[in-house]
Amino acid sequence: MQTLQVALNERSYPIFIGENLLTQVNCFKPYLTAKQIMIVSNSTIAPLYLERVQSTLLAQSYVVETHIMPDGEQYKDIAHIEGIFTTLLEKRFNRDCALVALGGGVVGDMTGFAAACYQRGVSFLQIPTTLLAQVDSSVGGKTGVNHPLGKNMIGAFKQPVAVLVDTSVLDTLNEREYAAGLAEVIKYGLIRDVPFLAWLEENIDGLVARDKVLLAEAIARSCQNKADVVAADELEANDLRALLNLGHTFGHAIETAMGYGVWLHGEAVATGMLMAADLSWRLGYLSIADVDRVKKLLVAAKLPVIPPSTISPTTFLDLMAVDKKVLAGKLRLVLLKSLGEAFVSADFPLATLAQTLAAGTQLGQAYD
Amino acid sequence: MQTLQVALNERSYPIFIGENLLTQVNCFKPYLTAKQIMIVSNSTIAPLYLERVQSTLLAQSYVVETHIMPDGEQYKDIAHIEGIFTTLLEKRFNRDCALVALGGGVVGDMTGFAAACYQRGVSFLQIPTTLLAQVDSSVGGKTGVNHPLGKNMIGAFKQPVAVLVDTSVLDTLNEREYAAGLAEVIKYGLIRDVPFLAWLEENIDGLVARDKVLLAEAIARSCQNKADVVAADELEANDLRALLNLGHTFGHAIETAMGYGVWLHGEAVATGMLMAADLSWRLGYLSIADVDRVKKLLVAAKLPVIPPSTISPTTFLDLMAVDKKVLAGKLRLVLLKSLGEAFVSADFPLATLAQTLAAGTQLGQAYD
Repeated sequence: MQTLQVALNERSYPIFIGENLLTQVNCFKPYLTAKQIMIVSNSTIAPLYLERVQSTLLAQSYVVETHIMPDGEQYKDIAHIEGIFTTLLEKRFNRDCALVALGGGVVGDMTGFAAACYQRGVSFLQIPTTLLAQVDSSVGGKTGVNHPLGKNMIGAFKQPVAVLVDTSVLDTLNEREYAAGLAEVIKYGLIRDVPFLAWLEENIDGLVARDKVLLAEAIARSCQNKADVVAADELEANDLRALLNLGHTFGHAIETAMGYGVWLHGEAVATGMLMAADLSWRLGYLSIADVDRVKKLLVAAKLPVIPPSTISPTTFLDLMAVDKKVLAGKLRLVLLKSLGEAFVSADFPLATLAQTLAAGTQLGQAYD
Repeated sequence: MQTLQVALNERSYPIFIGENLLTQVNCFKPYLTAKQIMIVSNSTIAPLYLERVQSTLLAQSYVVETHIMPDGEQYKDIAHIEGIFTTLLEKRFNRDCALVALGGGVVGDMTGFAAACYQRGVSFLQIPTTLLAQVDSSVGGKTGVNHPLGKNMIGAFKQPVAVLVDTSVLDTLNEREYAAGLAEVIKYGLIRDVPFLAWLEENIDGLVARDKVLLAEAIARSCQNKADVVAADELEANDLRALLNLGHTFGHAIETAMGYGVWLHGEAVATGMLMAADLSWRLGYLSIADVDRVKKLLVAAKLPVIPPSTISPTTFLDLMAVDKKVLAGKLRLVLLKSLGEAFVSADFPLATLAQTLAAGTQLGQAYD
């Protein structure tokens, strides 16, 4: 088991990475000081792993209750957060309770947000069960839900007390979910870690084949990158943390336009990253060869790289305008100065952005 | 104009108390650094004061939008918070916007909670328009909404950037609302300020007659008490801040049982405070004469002091069990060691509490 630390003063917490952590009491007990524990999971994950977590906690004489939600991004809304509150109140959970998120990014984001708001704040522990959640969403305290008019528009910064990354649970992940996680792994290479990017290019086939050793390495390096960024800019007060959103403004527009849950978040981010690379090329930052490297790696990871043809450039722009990075009415995007160096910019002609939005199958393909 | 300060390090903020503050730009401008301002109000207050605030802000070239809710505690729920988010998104409000709460406690609590959660946090300014909100709920950062199973169960700690207590707006307050505010004023005397309690007993008739000089004094002393407590225990991490909840556990049960909005919060708290005094007497802390003083002052302030006969002791206990002060399954109540000295206790026989809950019209009346 490896242990990384997210350094946030009194809100610091460990990330444990290893096999079969769900039954290791020392990953839970020091961090769950409450008596009442509510495990929040979904209908896909609960049959697979709920019992394991439940037994570990029951053996420590916690009072353990569960709340199982339907599986999917389309349920990441305020109504389903209210459902968590109802269960907590029906079970008479007090302010000294804790929530345990057992699931992917949706379960983690919702459980964290519920923990932030229940009785004005109770603690929570993350057990991410998808690759995407393990390398990204479970670390850093961004929690929340979608609004019909925009993704992740409602939420809170709420740090977990610990994150348990159990690599054994990835065996049950389907191919699309697994590839979606690789998108966020690749992101760290693109925004701030060129050696990692090169390592990924070398090992992408092994990663796609779910080689356990490579996977542990990829997860640890991703989490370390995430932890470093979060420690330096917890509340996204400057642009540092915003760099983690490479491809996300494009991606969120795809997710919102297609209906939440149709494209997986990681799939939309993958295509969004290629769009960001395409725009970075049009603006003179990247070479054609750079864009091609990005595309090749994403394709090798079995990720989509062509935005849906049903989304017009106008719709894209409309949906991108509600992005959280918009400042003083001006759209700001994460772009690539070079591979491994991202930056936030509002300084681009809308006409150039429109070219990227209209590129369709030419996006990346033109560079072959 | 008087200025008090809530001392919370980088979250410190001023409380301005005076007449006709709504048109004083210096109360707004230094605290609203955003360009986009959303004024949240209700259908009772908006026709009276919205235009005044709007003009003050428009003259400073802010972009000003409004969101008007129905008036009443029964609308303080998650659905109506979602309504605020919808307006914010429809108007394309970004993360650098600010919300202005113009209304009573319900508007303030909801606007603050919306500000805490919109895009994971934007700033907000409080303009309380009821006496209760001016002396209590607008100061201290407790925000949130009710759940059908419990009052204020969902929320966040979110400090405003400034609080504008305009005493001129109290002229339009109806008698019940005004008396409800006096309940919270009296609370400060009971929990921590005996000289203020004596002052209130002397001046209660003048206060009921809305004497402007007495009122300004009562508000300032209440806000100072609130600011002192909040500065010492912002997140209710120890029992100090909990003392502000004298009468509230009983009161919340009344509000929940009767249906939100039937009893005003201050009315329920008034009756709840007499119940707390009654229990404190049964436990040997207060004398009969003390309880009588409490009752006389509440009655002089035109406040109800008899709990609804429709709420059985069992229902009371049931509803009190979901209180946020419950710790490790044990009900904790704010009691009075003496007049002017409150404390939190879990150390009382349930049978004695049951006597208080069953006392009905004998509550306080027995001591006449």
